Amino acid sequence: MNIPDSYLEGIIKNALAEDLGVGDITTGCIMAGAQKPIKGMFIAKAEGVIAGLPVLEKVFKILDGSIAVNRKVEEGGWVSISQVIATIEGPASPVLWGERTALNFLQRMSGIATRTRRCVETVSGYSVRIADTRKTAPGLRILDKYSVAIGGGSNHRFNLSDGVLIKDNHIKAAGGIAEAVARVRERAPHTLRIEIEVEDLQQLDEALEAGAEVIMLDNMSLEDMKKAVIKAKGKALLEASGNVTEERLRDIAATGVDIISMGALTHSVKALDISLKFE
Amino acid sequence: MNIPDSYLEGIIKNALAEDLGVGDITTGCIMAGAQKPIKGMFIAKAEGVIAGLPVLEKVFKILDGSIAVNRKVEEGGWVSISQVIATIEGPASPVLWGERTALNFLQRMSGIATRTRRCVETVSGYSVRIADTRKTAPGLRILDKYSVAIGGGSNHRFNLSDGVLIKDNHIKAAGGIAEAVARVRERAPHTLRIEIEVEDLQQLDEALEAGAEVIMLDNMSLEDMKKAVIKAKGKALLEASGNVTEERLRDIAATGVDIISMGALTHSVKALDISLKFE
Amino acid sequence: MNIPDSYLEGIIKNALAEDLGVGDITTGCIMAGAQKPIKGMFIAKAEGVIAGLPVLEKVFKILDGSIAVNRKVEEGGWVSISQVIATIEGPASPVLWGERTALNFLQRMSGIATRTRRCVETVSGYSVRIADTRKTAPGLRILDKYSVAIGGGSNHRFNLSDGVLIKDNHIKAAGGIAEAVARVRERAPHTLRIEIEVEDLQQLDEALEAGAEVIMLDNMSLEDMKKAVIKAKGKALLEASGNVTEERLRDIAATGVDIISMGALTHSVKALDISLKFE
Amino acid sequence: MNIPDSYLEGIIKNALAEDLGVGDITTGCIMAGAQKPIKGMFIAKAEGVIAGLPVLEKVFKILDGSIAVNRKVEEGGWVSISQVIATIEGPASPVLWGERTALNFLQRMSGIATRTRRCVETVSGYSVRIADTRKTAPGLRILDKYSVAIGGGSNHRFNLSDGVLIKDNHIKAAGGIAEAVARVRERAPHTLRIEIEVEDLQQLDEALEAGAEVIMLDNMSLEDMKKAVIKAKGKALLEASGNVTEERLRDIAATGVDIISMGALTHSVKALDISLKFE
Amino acid sequence: MNIPDSYLEGIIKNALAEDLGVGDITTGCIMAGAQKPIKGMFIAKAEGVIAGLPVLEKVFKILDGSIAVNRKVEEGGWVSISQVIATIEGPASPVLWGERTALNFLQRMSGIATRTRRCVETVSGYSVRIADTRKTAPGLRILDKYSVAIGGGSNHRFNLSDGVLIKDNHIKAAGGIAEAVARVRERAPHTLRIEIEVEDLQQLDEALEAGAEVIMLDNMSLEDMKKAVIKAKGKALLEASGNVTEERLRDIAATGVDIISMGALTHSVKALDISLKFE
Amino acid sequence: MNIPDSYLEGIIKNALAEDLGVGDITTGCIMAGAQKPIKGMFIAKAEGVIAGLPVLEKVFKILDGSIAVNRKVEEGGWVSISQVIATIEGPASPVLWGERTALNFLQRMSGIATRTRRCVETVSGYSVRIADTRKTAPGLRILDKYSVAIGGGSNHRFNLSDGVLIKDNHIKAAGGIAEAVARVRERAPHTLRIEIEVEDLQQLDEALEAGAEVIMLDNMSLEDMKKAVIKAKGKALLEASGNVTEERLRDIAATGVDIISMGALTHSVKALDISLKFE
Repeated sequence: MNIPDSYLEGIIKNALAEDLGVGDITTGCIMAGAQKPIKGMFIAKAEGVIAGLPVLEKVFKILDGSIAVNRKVEEGGWVSISQVIATIEGPASPVLWGERTALNFLQRMSGIATRTRRCVETVSGYSVRIADTRKTAPGLRILDKYSVAIGGGSNHRFNLSDGVLIKDNHIKAAGGIAEAVARVRERAPHTLRIEIEVEDLQQLDEALEAGAEVIMLDNMSLEDMKKAVIKAKGKALLEASGNVTEERLRDIAATGVDIISMGALTHSVKALDISLKFE
Repeated sequence: MNIPDSYLEGIIKNALAEDLGVGDITTGCIMAGAQKPIKGMFIAKAEGVIAGLPVLEKVFKILDGSIAVNRKVEEGGWVSISQVIATIEGPASPVLWGERTALNFLQRMSGIATRTRRCVETVSGYSVRIADTRKTAPGLRILDKYSVAIGGGSNHRFNLSDGVLIKDNHIKAAGGIAEAVARVRERAPHTLRIEIEVEDLQQLDEALEAGAEVIMLDNMSLEDMKKAVIKAKGKALLEASGNVTEERLRDIAATGVDIISMGALTHSVKALDISLKFE
Repeated sequence: MNIPDSYLEGIIKNALAEDLGVGDITTGCIMAGAQKPIKGMFIAKAEGVIAGLPVLEKVFKILDGSIAVNRKVEEGGWVSISQVIATIEGPASPVLWGERTALNFLQRMSGIATRTRRCVETVSGYSVRIADTRKTAPGLRILDKYSVAIGGGSNHRFNLSDGVLIKDNHIKAAGGIAEAVARVRERAPHTLRIEIEVEDLQQLDEALEAGAEVIMLDNMSLEDMKKAVIKAKGKALLEASGNVTEERLRDIAATGVDIISMGALTHSVKALDISLKFE
Repeated sequence: MNIPDSYLEGIIKNALAEDLGVGDITTGCIMAGAQKPIKGMFIAKAEGVIAGLPVLEKVFKILDGSIAVNRKVEEGGWVSISQVIATIEGPASPVLWGERTALNFLQRMSGIATRTRRCVETVSGYSVRIADTRKTAPGLRILDKYSVAIGGGSNHRFNLSDGVLIKDNHIKAAGGIAEAVARVRERAPHTLRIEIEVEDLQQLDEALEAGAEVIMLDNMSLEDMKKAVIKAKGKALLEASGNVTEERLRDIAATGVDIISMGALTHSVKALDISLKFE
Repeated sequence: MNIPDSYLEGIIKNALAEDLGVGDITTGCIMAGAQKPIKGMFIAKAEGVIAGLPVLEKVFKILDGSIAVNRKVEEGGWVSISQVIATIEGPASPVLWGERTALNFLQRMSGIATRTRRCVETVSGYSVRIADTRKTAPGLRILDKYSVAIGGGSNHRFNLSDGVLIKDNHIKAAGGIAEAVARVRERAPHTLRIEIEVEDLQQLDEALEAGAEVIMLDNMSLEDMKKAVIKAKGKALLEASGNVTEERLRDIAATGVDIISMGALTHSVKALDISLKFE
Repeated sequence: MNIPDSYLEGIIKNALAEDLGVGDITTGCIMAGAQKPIKGMFIAKAEGVIAGLPVLEKVFKILDGSIAVNRKVEEGGWVSISQVIATIEGPASPVLWGERTALNFLQRMSGIATRTRRCVETVSGYSVRIADTRKTAPGLRILDKYSVAIGGGSNHRFNLSDGVLIKDNHIKAAGGIAEAVARVRERAPHTLRIEIEVEDLQQLDEALEAGAEVIMLDNMSLEDMKKAVIKAKGKALLEASGNVTEERLRDIAATGVDIISMGALTHSVKALDISLKFE
């Protein structure tokens, strides 16, 4: 997992603080200090792609170094209903403290990976990337995007500072596509490609002429996308965006665009049903 | 909005940091310091309940005190397609910086409120609460639960420290329902009700005898829930939980339980489609 | 110890930062890098209940993992004058760095536990709880309340978000006790009991009628408390509060109330005299 | 108030977070968004010195900029029973949210200032300073020491990094007083005086010879302190420390020492009784 | 200034905390609460480019909203010796508290901008960018890079996550340039150009063939750089790096490379001499 | 190393966060999860004093506990060109992640230590201290001052709260040197020496008469410094300050002052050239 460790730790500690408050009263009253061991299994109650095992492990490691989590599936692996994802063993109290937080991460992340996988398979045969967007749950972007990658998808820029995307308003402010691209070329780090959003084929022509390296086709018809592909071939990458549903995915891929970006991958997540059963 | 201000600020600043990184390169290159004013409207592209306007306002207030956001709908109000939710006016750069973050909050929160409203309406006529759970997006629990309340739902305990819920494993560890309840009664703050999860009617009897004040019926059949209602009437509140889908909601309500809690309200959110259009 | 670990760590690191500043100059000049081992004993210079050993241990563990602290008394145990509470052994520098901070915690916590124990013993024979309040040292509430529990006391709600307590002003704002209770019953999580503060027997009657589950008798005479107990028996828990001194404690307990809450347990703490002697 | 603002803000926000948790449920249920104004008075229920008015004001300012607090006594002023300390007026909800936190600060700080004033008056006529120590509530040192100053006391070093104090163990580690002082003189910043703790008159002689600028007389008899004063006059400042009770204070002052430091000023605080009464 | 405000605030508050500690003792003793106004001027004691005025302003705004700073030079402007850079007026205490911190920022930033300007002028006439590197003062990268931009330089990637740079070890790990570029092309966000570091002309050929978009010439001779320019013209941007001194700058520019990156711009800064003189 | 560990950790984690962002894309794409070991050497490319080895070690320890760093030179040791400073061995990814951050610390710190050593040697034979100032890189003061100490220099006060320095404006505000010193003597902790800045010999006389313990001679001529030394001998320490260049250092030392403070030690740092070469 390529997420900086302290970054990940921050997110998990925040989540644990949120769920533990000043301590688990029920478990505290019942256990009263006794440290009974407990064993359990994370079980899939729906089929899908598992993402988030490193997060699951870290949740419990932060709570108690002696808790052992053993993966029965590898990160990105497919599980069927009733399949064991991982086993857990350790002192009862910290295992119970971490249960809900760990599941909240694992279910969301696996939900994202599962849908991404489905979308990627939908376009199989075409050389097109399914990419995410910045439409993520606030505070969880790194995990949302990681989950897309685990599902076989591709990551778009992470935020406003690590990628250039010239939109509608930027074009207006600059007074035209040529000028907008010129300003960015002059001032942006030379390590970034210049991407611009266009709404029709005329804007596409201007963008190509201005030397844009990636062109986002916003809400374009399939017909226009096909024309755009012919125009841009070998000159710029084309990204289809806006109103991308799973139903339209294969048709969009057939137009020949290079990238299809889908906000729904991360803004409308269906959690994968997973539960923790104790022996 | 009853969320402590610094709590809310922490969440928003975190989200902005995530989306801004070291600064919006595109806008920076294009605007180059010029401070043009901009006007826009947040428009519903799907119908539903709007939740999160105070968050929306705070996002922009944090970015630039001179940005004006004017609500055209009140918090919790219903919007139809194309309806204007709010207008915004202010210097272009900070408005563009906040656009995505503000929408990410507003769309998720409105999505939660919308589904909650639908569930509440589904059980109309019954005196039953639709309640949330702890199955929330890590780090966003307070907003998720707030959105449920805006949608007309009811909040269950916030975390492990502000409510008692004796589950399966606690019962096992204590050696039975009676003992588990006794331990909690002896040690928990007297400000909390004692809630216990039961799986069948026999456990229900034990829980009632032990004096539990709230009893969670876990994955019970409609038939058993009806019987539970008869047994518990006037003695304890009953909460139906587990496998609660929108389809089964009205039938569950008809059993006479007091509360129905639904994880899906917050773990599987469909963002409400909202966009920001500039003039 | 049921305090979430990262919560505790936050408090301790904050205290160490406060006491260490940019480093212990004296020890630095004297030791100049040499790592001599040192041995010492924490010794009681007054008799009382020891609370805070896990905090003591964590202070030194944070400073240097190789420091060994061995308890000679268990948490909550009674010590007499000159009794050894714990021994410590490790490299001199970090032991000296942690000395004052560790003692500041241990002395305050043991002071709280000692007084609580005395109060609990004062009311022995009565089935009444001695409970704390929110009158704690800012930033140290969790330790203050933990110490009360170690002393045999009982915890009231932790903060404004995890318990309901309808006071004077809430009643006024709602327009009466019945209405205030009704509003809370409708809107508060079903996991919380409804507690209300009353000033006389008439308000008590109203509170009972409104279905309050816990009633706080604010500054009531012993006479009135006795009457209140007769009225409320079996209907609600009664909590005596306000002006509770150690002298009046046994008389209040004799009235038959269920809980006596005492702000002085935590707002006016006499540190237990403890010192660290090196060999 | 000379406390850096962001430092103070950190302490207050931490305290508010502790007391507000995820929000004031009772007030939220009762007020339900309505913003009624409320008026109240902070009233002394015991006589003493008021310290902490800037903290009181900042608590409410952080909660809601529109709350007005008006001082009726100045910081450091003496109040008698029933005297109004300050008035407050503002929207009911944030006033109620801040009540307990504000009082917790004000009562502790005024308690410290009151006792300090009493000690200072006890030694009136002698030119001796009453000084604090590092025996403060963890996390609150700056406020504890500020309160001592308001009460007329004097501040000792704030922490281990901003003053030199050679103790028992340092002397042992260095192999004698002369060597210990020499090491510090060579390595410590030239902006710090060199203070050393001695236990008898022989050590005092060594310390004087080594050129110590401040000498702490640890647990010395009155007799010895008098002799020490004669020896040290004009060569070093003398600080009496250890076992300093209010009863012995005047006698210690009479020995002629320059400073008397008292841990009890801050480790065993009796909160000044203050309440907030609403109209 | 395009630096996110809360980002900047974090850096400044950290610096102020470092310099204020628990408060300015000298000023506190002298002023004793009195709030005399003070007027002063920031004066250049060496000639150069001024960078950091927004930071200067924010330092004082954070300390006290009533302090007025008026620029007499614009950000990026050139000053000669004795020229007034800005005036300041406000209450004496907070002005004195901020003096050193404000100057520390302004002098470092202006030092960076001044040297950058000199380097940019050295290569005037050539269409080449002078770019910074990641060799910045830990914690100050955003200000270091901002200062380079103010001086007329260009920014390279900010950190490891917002730009691709395939180095020596990456090539070894991948088993060759072609494979390394292929792996990055397959997995990196499509918004980033692919940059690779080469050490000789043969590697350059491989990099061009692999389709690298930017090629860093590491420590190459002027002769080889010239050959590289001929090979790469129109195919990839060329960046000269390693051992770039001001003396060699013009010769390197003359080779025709597109970018020259210089670590010394930020790792070896000579502060611009600036002082604050009070009336 | 006497820097409190959590203090140091804070600085390093901040620096790593700055350089890693959301993760090292290049290494992530190339390595794709494989954990190859790597070996390297930190090599001096210029001669000088090495400072910062504990920081170097901690950078990698934070990133991955299994990375082994072995010192080949001790902290404060002198290295010649091409000398190996330390070796490193561990999994390739985290080693590459930490490379730049570790070098940024090590090069700056060694640069400071190297120049300090040169200055100290310049004045060899005189009993004078070379001291630092508060002119440090914001956020890095503790490391800057530590490096000065490693180089053989001496530390002045760390910040405004741990030393007294009466300057120009304080004297004006107090109405004269005598009054300024008196105010500080009355109110400052008795653990601090009183230092005052003077501009001419008349002020020096006043400062001596007022009983100042340290006197800073601001921008004085060599002639005047000599006279000052004669006047102050045995009464106060003298510190030369202002416009102290390496060229003038030996002459200043010859005047007989006790301390020479140099801002340039930390405000104008030339990084020591060090690189990490992998096998």
